[in-house]
Amino acid sequence: FKQKTAYEISLGLVGSEMCIRDSISIMVKAKSAYSEPGKLGKSEHHIIVVWVDNEAGVLARVVGLFSGRGYNIESLAVAEIDAMKNISRITIVTTGTPQVIDQIKLQLKKLVPVHKVADFKREDKEVIFKEMALLKVVGNKSKIDKCLKACKTFNPVILDKTKKSVVIQITALRREIDKMSKKLKPLGLTSTSRTGAIAMTRGAEVFK
Amino acid sequence: FKQKTAYEISLGLVGSEMCIRDSISIMVKAKSAYSEPGKLGKSEHHIIVVWVDNEAGVLARVVGLFSGRGYNIESLAVAEIDAMKNISRITIVTTGTPQVIDQIKLQLKKLVPVHKVADFKREDKEVIFKEMALLKVVGNKSKIDKCLKACKTFNPVILDKTKKSVVIQITALRREIDKMSKKLKPLGLTSTSRTGAIAMTRGAEVFK
Repeated sequence: FKQKTAYEISLGLVGSEMCIRDSISIMVKAKSAYSEPGKLGKSEHHIIVVWVDNEAGVLARVVGLFSGRGYNIESLAVAEIDAMKNISRITIVTTGTPQVIDQIKLQLKKLVPVHKVADFKREDKEVIFKEMALLKVVGNKSKIDKCLKACKTFNPVILDKTKKSVVIQITALRREIDKMSKKLKPLGLTSTSRTGAIAMTRGAEVFK
Repeated sequence: FKQKTAYEISLGLVGSEMCIRDSISIMVKAKSAYSEPGKLGKSEHHIIVVWVDNEAGVLARVVGLFSGRGYNIESLAVAEIDAMKNISRITIVTTGTPQVIDQIKLQLKKLVPVHKVADFKREDKEVIFKEMALLKVVGNKSKIDKCLKACKTFNPVILDKTKKSVVIQITALRREIDKMSKKLKPLGLTSTSRTGAIAMTRGAEVFK
């Protein structure tokens, strides 16, 4: 019982903090882009990559910059990429108007443990985007074979197989996996796990 | 200038909220596992999978349960897996004592937009764990060939190739990618992007 109470108090605090924070932002930035979302051009997909120190709390602060303004994160992937320097790389897919995305980027760059921030659009031909999915299909041999055939352009790997089920790993673009999920549903897709997109620039240059 | 001020105020609020929340937790749960981390058995790797409604703010609350108690998230992957039902699946890799992990799981289950929570250990033979990495290697042909050879057991796919660089996609276990990164560094690995692990149970059963 006591535990539940503490939990409820803490949730209440998170809620009230959010409200206070948002109203202050709006007050101070009354003429900023943020307060007039209707006049700001078309929303578009952005893939934002953030290099940060791998410390407790950094991810919460990065995610908070989005949720604090009611922005949904469509996918997020984070893992340590340099054990010596203790650097993690976060890849976030979100939708927003250019102005709001610019504002989020500015705030990200001001966070102390953030080293650099990249912002890619999904049409960008100079950047590779890729996502992995694990798909569990339950059904008879005929259905399973149809699924495997449907996946064949997405580097499928069979990770587990029983008489009536299969787990297939595929790697593809985000929207390709969206389509594949729809296609496999009537064929017995019962469980899906997806990583969210990650990104890498083409060529020998490294993003700075 | 005004924008910065608003930002700093909001950061300050986040900070103070955290302190208040933590001290209340400790006060109320003075005899709980949380307040005596030293006596709680060995820390171990856990892969926690959370099915949630895909809404703004949910990810922030889930991440906050970890960072609020100073727990680092080693990797996290989240993406929508059911567009009809609007469900996202979050996979988190963390390290903790059994007691703290149990507490986090209990709190996760109490969050309203959370549908179910799974907790796997990496030794679990009934579960498949998999991670994807994009690796950029810059160097001469001999070095690039050595890299490709080193990756050959991890389903390598060449996504981009120039005279002096290559981007390789691999899928493997987390610790295999850790090893591969170390191995490729002296061969010209200049940039890495990793998804973090995702998980899927073997066989026809679906986790409930």
